[in-house]
Amino acid sequence: MSINPVTLAQALIAAPSITPATGAVFDVLEAALTPLGFTVERFIDGIEPDGPVENLLAVRKGKGPKHFGFAGHLDVVPPGVGWTGDAFAPEIRGDLLYGRGAVDMKGSIAAFVAAAAETPAEAGTISLIITGDEEGPAIFGTRALMEHMDARGIRPDMIVVGEPTSVNRLGDMVKIGRRGSVNIWIDVPGTQGHVAYPHLADNPIPKLVKILAAIDAVVLDEGNDWFQPSNIEFTDIEVGNGATNVIPASARARLSIRFNDAHKGADLVAMIERIAHDIEPNAKILGKISGEAFLTPPGDLSELVAEAIQAETDIAPDMSTTGGTSDARFLHALCPVVEFGLTNATMHKLDEAVTVADLHTLAAIYRGILVRAFA
Amino acid sequence: MSINPVTLAQALIAAPSITPATGAVFDVLEAALTPLGFTVERFIDGIEPDGPVENLLAVRKGKGPKHFGFAGHLDVVPPGVGWTGDAFAPEIRGDLLYGRGAVDMKGSIAAFVAAAAETPAEAGTISLIITGDEEGPAIFGTRALMEHMDARGIRPDMIVVGEPTSVNRLGDMVKIGRRGSVNIWIDVPGTQGHVAYPHLADNPIPKLVKILAAIDAVVLDEGNDWFQPSNIEFTDIEVGNGATNVIPASARARLSIRFNDAHKGADLVAMIERIAHDIEPNAKILGKISGEAFLTPPGDLSELVAEAIQAETDIAPDMSTTGGTSDARFLHALCPVVEFGLTNATMHKLDEAVTVADLHTLAAIYRGILVRAFA
Ligand SMILES: [Zn+2]
Ligand SMILES: [Zn+2]
Repeated sequence: MSINPVTLAQALIAAPSITPATGAVFDVLEAALTPLGFTVERFIDGIEPDGPVENLLAVRKGKGPKHFGFAGHLDVVPPGVGWTGDAFAPEIRGDLLYGRGAVDMKGSIAAFVAAAAETPAEAGTISLIITGDEEGPAIFGTRALMEHMDARGIRPDMIVVGEPTSVNRLGDMVKIGRRGSVNIWIDVPGTQGHVAYPHLADNPIPKLVKILAAIDAVVLDEGNDWFQPSNIEFTDIEVGNGATNVIPASARARLSIRFNDAHKGADLVAMIERIAHDIEPNAKILGKISGEAFLTPPGDLSELVAEAIQAETDIAPDMSTTGGTSDARFLHALCPVVEFGLTNATMHKLDEAVTVADLHTLAAIYRGILVRAFA
Repeated sequence: MSINPVTLAQALIAAPSITPATGAVFDVLEAALTPLGFTVERFIDGIEPDGPVENLLAVRKGKGPKHFGFAGHLDVVPPGVGWTGDAFAPEIRGDLLYGRGAVDMKGSIAAFVAAAAETPAEAGTISLIITGDEEGPAIFGTRALMEHMDARGIRPDMIVVGEPTSVNRLGDMVKIGRRGSVNIWIDVPGTQGHVAYPHLADNPIPKLVKILAAIDAVVLDEGNDWFQPSNIEFTDIEVGNGATNVIPASARARLSIRFNDAHKGADLVAMIERIAHDIEPNAKILGKISGEAFLTPPGDLSELVAEAIQAETDIAPDMSTTGGTSDARFLHALCPVVEFGLTNATMHKLDEAVTVADLHTLAAIYRGILVRAFA
């Protein structure tokens, strides 16, 4: 039984699925997987506003000893206004298939299903680990799927996440890890007063400026073989004082740290707190760790993925840890994880599109990965 | 003809007159002045939201050569919520007369009218220069009155502004000048981007932090005989970026400089611009000068005011330039100006109140000032 990845991608795009996603888009995927011999389980978790989220686990037991997992998401970011066509009415114009999710990542899921269809069931066990919330808070998504798998004793030996990792050409980049991410809020208290009587007030802004200047001077590291240098970005400062003659009562800032495997999120929060407290002991620090840095060191999995890519495209992919977070930050707890998928130039943008040729090539690469994984 | 300053203050308070003020409260004052021989002119200027503003000019020509001006305002700041009684229903409880404007500055205007009533008309010319917008933008207030006076050739030889300058006891402080005031906005542009790809963005926040740190290190001066040191206060910083993973496109700050007579507002704006442009040439600087610093150097006027205070209270007043701005910043262009009035502890606060005794004493002091001015 053969599956055309373009046709399946179109069917998936045609089922709108803005985060958090449930329902029709999962029906489409289930209808494609069941005839291939997959046992499909679906469950819904969470409540508004972060849910409900639908998750799908599809397993086809093989005779071979290896268990290969493919992970991805059927939810998409909102289309925004200004598309040439309808974001949820997939359309091929010229070489391109347009539609929200074409590259991130309904196209990639369709390519993997096509690859699985071409793979003999006896070669090995295949799981699809598909969530309806990767683009959102991801609380009821892949983590819930992992609990579900754990309860059933389902544990792949390796996982490929189908995120759009390619940059300029399909195959030019594989992700073997991701930086960690932490957001930190700094709240500096002061004493409100009138600018004409500063001795009766305590202006929090100069203290916040000193704290931010000290943080700006921090060099976390110089990077290493697999990671860029860790980086601190200030993302917001806020006082909210409309009165030109008033010294405000407090001043706040927010920063984002993307960090490599030389750091742990909690240590970074503690470092920011030390810097702030050196300047203002009453400053309040709040840290929220989105994910720790992780790395699947180059090895069997990344090599077989690179071989499959090279066989189809003649490209030797970069092994990278750049970019934002993905659900690989959760899955790496199970087994080696790498990420590989379509080119990401149009992801999250207007007129998101994938070339029809890339969908077929990606299906071939995924098939090559399965062949090598089960070899 | 004798006027009780407490009765007149009550009548003025009973006419609500939140900035910008017109109408009834001016009727009350006009009704008190006309029987004393004053010629009263009233005119309304400005449109919403800064107007309409009513202004009143009352002149009583005397035989003596000297022309004494008294300046003040009938508008009041909003009462706010939480008064023990009704802010616009004046009430004497114990020693205190309560009501919005009791000290700032309907009480003072009432005291001056009582003093004028005790002063023989032939002693000298008296003008009352009374606006309905001192607490607001003051665009259609005292400046409009000064144009009106100029057109009629009315120019006092000296002016006392009846603002509540006393701090702990009536008579302890006279203001002989005020610091200048300028608000400056700094807008630092950047290039928006994703925190995971900082090389594609240009974060404006570290630049703003550097600019503010450089400004924070500036010492404008050490003060002089009559002025405190000039002072810079940051009053707001703002980015308004809700997204934790976005590097913002711009960052803004606002500061307030209260400066002494060693500086001009425009020079300070230029200095801030130089500092900002050293760090980010594309930073936009906007300055709004509320008033330049001014000083009526201690001399005849301040001495006669001090003598009149000491005669009634036994207090030798401090000659000060502290505090916020007042309409004296405009009037000093005409002639020597000093400010003297009630104690300011409750001005702009809930349960604003003046002691009944202070109203009588202030009337006696103002009368002593007139006697000395016309001597
Ligand atoms: Zn994605
Ligand atoms: Zn006032």
